[in-house]
Amino acid sequence: MSQVMIKDDEVDIVIGALQSDLTSFMEEWRPVFSRFHLIIVKDPDLNGELKIPEGFNLNLYTKSDIDKLVGSSSSISFSGYSCRYFGYLVSHKKYIISIDDDCIPARDGKGQIIDAVAQHITNLTTPATPFFFNTLYDPFSKGTDFVRGYPFSLRSGVECGLSCGLWLNLADYDAPTQALKPDQRNSRYVDAVLTVPTRAMMPVSGINIGFNSELVGPALLPAFRLTKEGKLRWETVEDIWTGMCVKVVCDHLKLGVKSGLPYFCRQERGSAIESLKKEWEGVKLMEDVVPFFQSVRLSEAAVTA
Amino acid sequence: MSQVMIKDDEVDIVIGALQSDLTSFMEEWRPVFSRFHLIIVKDPDLNGELKIPEGFNLNLYTKSDIDKLVGSSSSISFSGYSCRYFGYLVSHKKYIISIDDDCIPARDGKGQIIDAVAQHITNLTTPATPFFFNTLYDPFSKGTDFVRGYPFSLRSGVECGLSCGLWLNLADYDAPTQALKPDQRNSRYVDAVLTVPTRAMMPVSGINIGFNSELVGPALLPAFRLTKEGKLRWETVEDIWTGMCVKVVCDHLKLGVKSGLPYFCRQERGSAIESLKKEWEGVKLMEDVVPFFQSVRLSEAAVTA
Repeated sequence: MSQVMIKDDEVDIVIGALQSDLTSFMEEWRPVFSRFHLIIVKDPDLNGELKIPEGFNLNLYTKSDIDKLVGSSSSISFSGYSCRYFGYLVSHKKYIISIDDDCIPARDGKGQIIDAVAQHITNLTTPATPFFFNTLYDPFSKGTDFVRGYPFSLRSGVECGLSCGLWLNLADYDAPTQALKPDQRNSRYVDAVLTVPTRAMMPVSGINIGFNSELVGPALLPAFRLTKEGKLRWETVEDIWTGMCVKVVCDHLKLGVKSGLPYFCRQERGSAIESLKKEWEGVKLMEDVVPFFQSVRLSEAAVTA
Repeated sequence: MSQVMIKDDEVDIVIGALQSDLTSFMEEWRPVFSRFHLIIVKDPDLNGELKIPEGFNLNLYTKSDIDKLVGSSSSISFSGYSCRYFGYLVSHKKYIISIDDDCIPARDGKGQIIDAVAQHITNLTTPATPFFFNTLYDPFSKGTDFVRGYPFSLRSGVECGLSCGLWLNLADYDAPTQALKPDQRNSRYVDAVLTVPTRAMMPVSGINIGFNSELVGPALLPAFRLTKEGKLRWETVEDIWTGMCVKVVCDHLKLGVKSGLPYFCRQERGSAIESLKKEWEGVKLMEDVVPFFQSVRLSEAAVTA
């Protein structure tokens, strides 16, 4: 898999710490994390010392680091889930994998941990095919190919900018959906990666993504925060906005965005019903934002993210 | 599932008979076929009597029926795989499911036959979502939903015109791919249905499809035959052309095209290497045809297929 193609030191794993005690999170991920360099960014609004177990290769960034680099006046935009974007800013690696701290590795049928980082790297280092949809999903996956009728001129594909993973157990639903279907859990493991076609918009979740920072890094900014945004995933839309920026940039630069594997196992936290009044602001904004992203066209002269 | 929503007599299953002895094909499908009305169209180029086992509700059409209805001069366009289109023409049902005669039902992990017809009907009778990609695939499948960030105004979806199934064992590759990788078999069961986004082109295979004939029936015509076309699936592109017509029509009429489940199990026939010299004509034509379909825009005044 990916290990033959890239070195582990080309990868940074970025973790935005929204909870103080990362012990169980880090221990669950130890078999995967121990091979890579980690960047942990403490939510500047989080009080108390972070608890991080020993034995990892990591750099920790806190409010003072954020203030030093970007000035205290703008540090507000790196609070909450947006603290991860500070990690993207200070990383110098080609590949960045971002993992929410309420996720643990998914396991295959035999109980073995799925190496989600390796899957993201595979997605990012094999070509993407945004200009024609392959009905057998990713033609570069083992055991599959381009189906009959796929134009040969498009089979070499293009570079992949962004890899979006999914979630078992608690899927990434919004607060209204969670509140309506509190018992709904995702147990369907869809064994596929696909390139989302060019010009198709999608809701990118920041919970489980990887990206090529040389290609699209500058597009991953905490540009969009709701005034009443909360500390639960379903109360935020920063990643949805950022994802649409990245998708538009990838479409313009003829890069690919993949979606599907790897899965994380997401654990519960918070009450969706409590969140409902905060959420609606983001939900309503989406109605205005999506037509904008669907119609925006970038200048031909723009050739980098 | 679908049985609560539509009646079995709203469905025609169309089978183009390219081989004389349909006994084992029909017996494999008996548990599924026995509930529905079948239309069997004998390839007008096929000699000898068809062997069809008893106990099915079917109408058989042969060369003389084709000649009678459309005149002998144009019957050429219904030869080979294109004979199925005659079945589409004579059907009066709302839903048409088309099955190649070298396919048998796929089986689930417990060895139970998968009811492919029920899955096509489910795909066709639940909404499609072509205007925004849902990362958890079909939001109308059991146990799944729209993910956070999906615009609420798009969640009611649109009607589905075409449902494209896939293939286990021998996948639908072209002759060059088959010749290069003769041992490649598809064993990856991807448990998902998705709406292919609007304006994304795709290679529709005629092996395993269902469609709503009231919505898109007239677009499924045998409009495109190669002069040197042969009698093996990989030697034809009639369905690829037809599929792009249907996709363009669906995009224009704001209908959906779904891809994924159900799977058929496809059995071997023919030699890919022998076919290579016939295939290239179609492969080369695709290079010209795809940009046409990607750029064609239909008149606003056109409101039916």
